[in-house]
Amino acid sequence: MAGAPFASSPREYSPTTPDADWFRAPRTTKGTGVSEVFSTNPVTGVATPLGIHETSVEEVVQMGRRSLGAATTFATRSLEWRAGLLEAMAQALDDDGAAIIAAANEETGLGEGRLTGELRRTSFQFRFFASVVRDGGFLEASVDHATDTPMGPLPDLRRQLEPLGPVAVFGASNFPLAFSVPGGDTASALAAGCSVIVKAHPAHPNTSRLCVRALERAASQVDAPVDLLQCVFGVAAGVSLVDDVNVRAVGFTGSYRAGRFLFDRAQARAVPIPFYGELGSVNALVITPRAAGARASEIGAAMVASVTLGAGQFCTKPGLLFVPSGRDGDEVVSAAREAMSASAGATMLSSAIREHYDAGVAALLDTQGVEVLARSSSGSGPSGAGAVLVEIALDTLSGPDASILDTECFGAVAIVVRYAQRERLLEALSDLEPALTFTVHAESDDDWGPVLIDLGRQLAGRVIINGYPTGVGVSWSMHHGGPHPATTSALHTSVGANSMRRWLRPVSYQSVPDAWLPESIKEDNPLGIVRRVDGQLRA
Amino acid sequence: MAGAPFASSPREYSPTTPDADWFRAPRTTKGTGVSEVFSTNPVTGVATPLGIHETSVEEVVQMGRRSLGAATTFATRSLEWRAGLLEAMAQALDDDGAAIIAAANEETGLGEGRLTGELRRTSFQFRFFASVVRDGGFLEASVDHATDTPMGPLPDLRRQLEPLGPVAVFGASNFPLAFSVPGGDTASALAAGCSVIVKAHPAHPNTSRLCVRALERAASQVDAPVDLLQCVFGVAAGVSLVDDVNVRAVGFTGSYRAGRFLFDRAQARAVPIPFYGELGSVNALVITPRAAGARASEIGAAMVASVTLGAGQFCTKPGLLFVPSGRDGDEVVSAAREAMSASAGATMLSSAIREHYDAGVAALLDTQGVEVLARSSSGSGPSGAGAVLVEIALDTLSGPDASILDTECFGAVAIVVRYAQRERLLEALSDLEPALTFTVHAESDDDWGPVLIDLGRQLAGRVIINGYPTGVGVSWSMHHGGPHPATTSALHTSVGANSMRRWLRPVSYQSVPDAWLPESIKEDNPLGIVRRVDGQLRA
Repeated sequence: MAGAPFASSPREYSPTTPDADWFRAPRTTKGTGVSEVFSTNPVTGVATPLGIHETSVEEVVQMGRRSLGAATTFATRSLEWRAGLLEAMAQALDDDGAAIIAAANEETGLGEGRLTGELRRTSFQFRFFASVVRDGGFLEASVDHATDTPMGPLPDLRRQLEPLGPVAVFGASNFPLAFSVPGGDTASALAAGCSVIVKAHPAHPNTSRLCVRALERAASQVDAPVDLLQCVFGVAAGVSLVDDVNVRAVGFTGSYRAGRFLFDRAQARAVPIPFYGELGSVNALVITPRAAGARASEIGAAMVASVTLGAGQFCTKPGLLFVPSGRDGDEVVSAAREAMSASAGATMLSSAIREHYDAGVAALLDTQGVEVLARSSSGSGPSGAGAVLVEIALDTLSGPDASILDTECFGAVAIVVRYAQRERLLEALSDLEPALTFTVHAESDDDWGPVLIDLGRQLAGRVIINGYPTGVGVSWSMHHGGPHPATTSALHTSVGANSMRRWLRPVSYQSVPDAWLPESIKEDNPLGIVRRVDGQLRA
Repeated sequence: MAGAPFASSPREYSPTTPDADWFRAPRTTKGTGVSEVFSTNPVTGVATPLGIHETSVEEVVQMGRRSLGAATTFATRSLEWRAGLLEAMAQALDDDGAAIIAAANEETGLGEGRLTGELRRTSFQFRFFASVVRDGGFLEASVDHATDTPMGPLPDLRRQLEPLGPVAVFGASNFPLAFSVPGGDTASALAAGCSVIVKAHPAHPNTSRLCVRALERAASQVDAPVDLLQCVFGVAAGVSLVDDVNVRAVGFTGSYRAGRFLFDRAQARAVPIPFYGELGSVNALVITPRAAGARASEIGAAMVASVTLGAGQFCTKPGLLFVPSGRDGDEVVSAAREAMSASAGATMLSSAIREHYDAGVAALLDTQGVEVLARSSSGSGPSGAGAVLVEIALDTLSGPDASILDTECFGAVAIVVRYAQRERLLEALSDLEPALTFTVHAESDDDWGPVLIDLGRQLAGRVIINGYPTGVGVSWSMHHGGPHPATTSALHTSVGANSMRRWLRPVSYQSVPDAWLPESIKEDNPLGIVRRVDGQLRA
């Protein structure tokens, strides 16, 4: 079979070294020479000082110490109390929703509709984690009574997962709520029993500040430890967080370049710490000949809608669209062109992101074999951008410019790849970089289905049939992750119940008297949670 | 409370750079100038050529490719078949037991009694993992049916864990079986569905070869993919394994220095991979005044037995023994001196390890405030060594030579630390480096118990009451790990059922037709395993 499972990453990244560009890029201090924090409206380009300053390295060190103290107190509270804290935080976000959405819209231009949905998702996420905390299964509690084995007697041994301690979270540009201050990393770390210090993304500092206030108010209402959640501003503060001796793990959502820089830094520490970087990817979407035969227009239009959603600013945006040659495929492309031409330009998150997008598109259009299929209308204002759909032949993917084609361009651009033969398609797919998602459009009795799924599971963290990858739900079974370069840790997810596992470490208790054991592993199971007892799961 | 939870690592390690010494140290080629592999008897010092050569870098690359092919085939086999493979491997080790134990005894001097027990543990471990594979819980299978949520409709989503691909395993010096070719890393990686390439430890190449033969025979009997298990010899080959593009994760048991070097290398790759280093530690054992009052002689003798077990060549050897001042404590020390003086010297695993041990003891004895309490008789031959018990006052631990006292010395040496006040003891303990284990001797209604357990869970991966840390059982609840510097990944264990989690990554399947789903997450649960369905665990 051409699709070699366990595909490695054929085009490798060179290790990243400190990069002055990256340090400069996200700063919002517009030539003022001081580290004041500005809130910038991407529609107008107007930058308003917020009356706060970027966090100094000394402040970060103090915040790290306070975070450790907060974590220590937090770890003594009950799971029920912790669930209540998360619910109070959800309620506070809902209560402040109007102000938060207005600020986020001013800073991101994402629109009230999208931001209302994102806030709903964000408070749902806190409530979901409250239910996961109450369930208690995340503790992986297990009890092995003393016993004889073929290797000799074993003492009484019990195990549960315990919080790592202070966690640093880097807010993402593209989700001012769901992947920022009140986002999944924060919620899952708090749910795991860790304190949190968020590095606010410079694209939405005011939104971040309002969210911190809402979460702090909720924490105070339930008498949470002071400094359970803190927030820093500025790139230097972010780097200091990764270096800080009291920080025990990092959650990051952003670009490969910034993520790899921080990952390297976290691993080079005297005491290395886990760094969970969700770095985005080029997501493949494959349409089989039979799917094209059955649903050409529908798929063509819908895949463009997925590409242009939110100005293409999704790490799960489908970037490579594999369309069969021939008439059915032509019909897919025709519907896609039509949808793209009818699309409106959009406001990107910042002028810096728009500049990166423009540069990425320009590089793509300069690449031999790339032809423009359609453009949306252009955007207006300093962050305005139009969407672009281009086409290449399958062989171009293995040509000299392969790395340009298989590198994420953050924004509403996608490449239609026309293929003729199944074997050649499978070869090309198995040469792709691993990604967050892999989407297949196939008919239900399509014999391409199993082959493509088998390839997809090797290449990606989530395989989608007859859907689009841009939706990422919060649930038990969601995996939002994937092999490098999609993330820096293929073992873990940044979304869903299992994202809590990133902030927990096991501890075993050997022959510890019942009175001295944590609740979860006392003999009579006072928490009433699922446990593995003498090897058997007991619900 | 003086014992600050989430204690950080106050004395930090400097990042390790490539180290010519380390490269030279473990080589067994005794000045021959060629990379022939020698089997050295530590009792006589006689080195016998095995008629094989160290593995070249080119060979490693080829083996990596073949391992990827084997992993691909392996992943298609059923869980039941996989369990049968593990059982066949257990049986083959038992069948070849006499020859393997004889070879191991010649190469390690550990004695037939200990090695017979270690083989029993090793084959038990394969059978244990067979039961864990059949149980299927390790897949973390979950099914979320399509539903409506407050954040909108969610599609059908299902999740399971899948094998990472080829795993590199570094055999340990001190367990020629249980932590080497047929050890826990190998067994857990195979159980997870991964292929394995082991780097044989130079202290027991012949044992390694015999074990490879036994495991290969078993694999062949059940028609396993060729090259499912491979073995390399030599330091350069080991480093190449960590670099190899087809290797997806590394399991390592050994020294901090070698482990950190390889960890850094694994993280600096173009595609970083998980590196699970179990690096040993200085394990604290605390005797409360009441325990000393009740069981002075018993504890004094037993703790020395734990220190001298296997010539002290255990990563869980208790290295710091906290004994109260006063008469009861004196009685503990007196019993310990007696036991130590009555101990026989022992043969260490190699002359190189004995040299390191001698150097470590010499550095300790040179340290101000260190007094010798007792010595065993001395060992004979090139690898012979005597055991040593020394004493310091509590304050010495926070003095200028703290790092010497809190650095692992691999071998039968331990430091008795006399303490007077509980608060000072707790302060000193909370300043210790994190470790694999933390042991407390306390009476059942001793009010020191909870305080010390709370401290222990922050400092170590396993907390032991009224026992000794050198026993590490294979079970569901065993955690063999701990915060850095005990390991390079506090989230995972190298022993027990959960060690399989190291070699697995999640994959989600969205809206995939039942016929195309992996068995574990098909609607009607054909494997009959425990799954989380719509958020509820169903056993």
